[in-house]
Amino acid sequence: MSADWFRRRFLPGGPLPAPRPPRPRASPVPYRRPRFLRGSGSSPGTADASCRPNARPVRSPVRGRALPWNAGYAEIINAEKSEFNEDQAACGKLCIRRFEFGVEEDQEWLTLCPEEFLTGHYWALFDGHGGPAAAILAANTLHSCLRRQLEAVVEGMVATQPPMHLSGHCIRPSDPQFVEEKGIRAEDLVVGALESAFQECDEVIGRELEASGQVGGCTALVAVTLQGKLYVANAGDSRAILVRRDEVRPLSSEFTPETERQRIQQLAFLYPELLAGEFTRLEFPRRLKGDDLGQKVLFRDHHMSGWSYKCVEQSDLKYPLIHGQGRQARLLGTLAVSRGLGDHQLKVLDTNIQLKPFLLSVPQVTVLDMDQLEPQEEDIVVMATDGLWDVLSNEQVARLVRSFLPGNREDPHRFSELAQMLIHSTQGKDDSPTQEGQVSYDDVSVFVIPLHNQGQGRSSH
Amino acid sequence: MSADWFRRRFLPGGPLPAPRPPRPRASPVPYRRPRFLRGSGSSPGTADASCRPNARPVRSPVRGRALPWNAGYAEIINAEKSEFNEDQAACGKLCIRRFEFGVEEDQEWLTLCPEEFLTGHYWALFDGHGGPAAAILAANTLHSCLRRQLEAVVEGMVATQPPMHLSGHCIRPSDPQFVEEKGIRAEDLVVGALESAFQECDEVIGRELEASGQVGGCTALVAVTLQGKLYVANAGDSRAILVRRDEVRPLSSEFTPETERQRIQQLAFLYPELLAGEFTRLEFPRRLKGDDLGQKVLFRDHHMSGWSYKCVEQSDLKYPLIHGQGRQARLLGTLAVSRGLGDHQLKVLDTNIQLKPFLLSVPQVTVLDMDQLEPQEEDIVVMATDGLWDVLSNEQVARLVRSFLPGNREDPHRFSELAQMLIHSTQGKDDSPTQEGQVSYDDVSVFVIPLHNQGQGRSSH
Repeated sequence: MSADWFRRRFLPGGPLPAPRPPRPRASPVPYRRPRFLRGSGSSPGTADASCRPNARPVRSPVRGRALPWNAGYAEIINAEKSEFNEDQAACGKLCIRRFEFGVEEDQEWLTLCPEEFLTGHYWALFDGHGGPAAAILAANTLHSCLRRQLEAVVEGMVATQPPMHLSGHCIRPSDPQFVEEKGIRAEDLVVGALESAFQECDEVIGRELEASGQVGGCTALVAVTLQGKLYVANAGDSRAILVRRDEVRPLSSEFTPETERQRIQQLAFLYPELLAGEFTRLEFPRRLKGDDLGQKVLFRDHHMSGWSYKCVEQSDLKYPLIHGQGRQARLLGTLAVSRGLGDHQLKVLDTNIQLKPFLLSVPQVTVLDMDQLEPQEEDIVVMATDGLWDVLSNEQVARLVRSFLPGNREDPHRFSELAQMLIHSTQGKDDSPTQEGQVSYDDVSVFVIPLHNQGQGRSSH
Repeated sequence: MSADWFRRRFLPGGPLPAPRPPRPRASPVPYRRPRFLRGSGSSPGTADASCRPNARPVRSPVRGRALPWNAGYAEIINAEKSEFNEDQAACGKLCIRRFEFGVEEDQEWLTLCPEEFLTGHYWALFDGHGGPAAAILAANTLHSCLRRQLEAVVEGMVATQPPMHLSGHCIRPSDPQFVEEKGIRAEDLVVGALESAFQECDEVIGRELEASGQVGGCTALVAVTLQGKLYVANAGDSRAILVRRDEVRPLSSEFTPETERQRIQQLAFLYPELLAGEFTRLEFPRRLKGDDLGQKVLFRDHHMSGWSYKCVEQSDLKYPLIHGQGRQARLLGTLAVSRGLGDHQLKVLDTNIQLKPFLLSVPQVTVLDMDQLEPQEEDIVVMATDGLWDVLSNEQVARLVRSFLPGNREDPHRFSELAQMLIHSTQGKDDSPTQEGQVSYDDVSVFVIPLHNQGQGRSSH
């Protein structure tokens, strides 16, 4: 993506058609139909993706389907917000092939089934909005993008240290030293591959949605185990946590208009034409009205972490770039997340103002060294969409995990049942541990990934 | 500062005069003359700034002068990099006046010496580059900017919660609730005032330097105690740490071309004309040469935390926007810091490429609640310019503090002597605790601030 592309895409040379003012949203809470629990009682299936080299990850477009796999269990619940599930999931074995130095790529591709060189595991959750199309495409596509990106750098990943030149040719005597000083490690290549894969997948979704006349976007949360490390890549408001006997550790951060306020305001500062004169980039404690004019009110701009007071001018009365707070915060009055895939065509209602320039498809990636962690049998990662975290805190989930697993040591399906139990806990049952019996009316999807023995992928090359 | 201002200032409509390529810098280490220790043996003076209401903070433009004050001691050493000390310091009592509601500002100003309403303490270190002019201006100016900014919001600071309207008039019944939901606290106003004060001071320095035909810039590290809290505001590569009996806590982060790589690369992505075709915004492990063309080499772009490989094109051979690593990293081949005050006229040598658009004057602010901390008698904050931290780690400084203070409990000058001792430790003495006898050839300035009883300012209104 070049700067020229950014400008051509988002900054047309001529003046924008005069947009109508955005419809005021007194209550920006998204529409939610009453919950309709389905399929949560299903037991995990038996299909074992790890038996199939280069297996296409299992995708579950159907509602409430348990994702069967022996190394991670998912449970998905549909809140019936749309006909198809807006939450989508995928998991499977990740098989990375090797392109040997000196072998022409064409020759390599002639081998129809080259032996896998590195293997890992892949889990992904996608929470769609504006329909399930982007989430379904992401569940079908992202793992392929990731495999391609990893195969492009696999030679560097298995070197003691990634070489300056991937080909291995033309290395100057001074190169290894330079690379060493920069401290570039194999894991940095996996992080880079995850970042590139998210972007590639975003481009694929953009093309596919445009070609098929569909719309929509989705968040993406991905966990990958590879070479003894766990990578968690997040773009959106899903969350992954590590739960051990004595520790609860967040493995991701949420990206919303509130958490990315300064980045979003700064873009509007640098390119005010993106707001087409309809929005103010400034943050106020509430939307300003005519009789605030001339008053000194609290505000924040892009460079401020703290608050200050300013004298209200006419332009401050416009609708705020980011409005509302907590779960109700919206970007341009429209979107509750600031990172994800898709949304290429999304505009503010009845205007030509695009949301995409303010969105990032690139994830934040956390790396966990499992060799150092030495996971015990009940150390797990819980990945879930926002529907779970709206009503359960990290600590509440950890308490549920610790109260469930020790009493079910003999149960071969216990991780799947734990995922089901966590989903049940968001549905307002009598014994629900949520504060004040809170109920989630959103789609909820949960992966439970046991970490014990996950480091074994290391020995596969 | 508006977007229009940004564009007028940094993006001239016509094409830039063709610049000459920047001079290659084989070794971007800044010029350093051998150290020349002076004045480090001086004992602290007796002038007590806290006796003088609205006292102008003590500034020390002279070399090696100990800053006398009963609540914080400074020691400054000049490495003789320039005729005047490039390190400057200021400290003093901060006296905030109150403008009462309903009293016209004109009337308020008629009172020549209005009684102070809130008092706090202020310490600041400025590390100049390109001469001492900006650092001297900052030491003379920043405290006044801060006092002005604090006085503008003091009514909000002393309210239970900052009100939506500063005037107290026209508050709607719904306002307090809105403000409360945003969770805005009095300390957010102090953070906002520090951010605004740094920006105001930067503008003053820009005007003053232009008017006097001088040049230069400086980093700024400020500590303020107010209403039972300690605020540390940092723009540059100085550092403050808290040292207690069982704890060493960083109170600031450094802002350099390396730590702010993604922000700087992103601006170059959005406004490539800022590089005038002379630099590449991409990061490579080393500078590329002609025979790298066509090779796949490691690189990072603005959206990447990880690394990837790309095929080298002609444009990748340009000088990198950020080059070198660690202490040698330079922005546009010129500057080792990415935040600070001044540098309004700074251009890449022999070109029209300006550095200012890539620099931020806004500090990052850390808040420490001293009431919660309950500081003991030997709990201190150590503030120092990079000359100290180049050769001593946080832990080494903490060990020196803990080995010095307990044995000197009866010495009234012990904090000043500790500051001197820390400076001595950077000068390669035989008993130096620095690794491998490292010596600092840079200016070094140190404040030692005892925290015990600092919370007393709270009772002053």
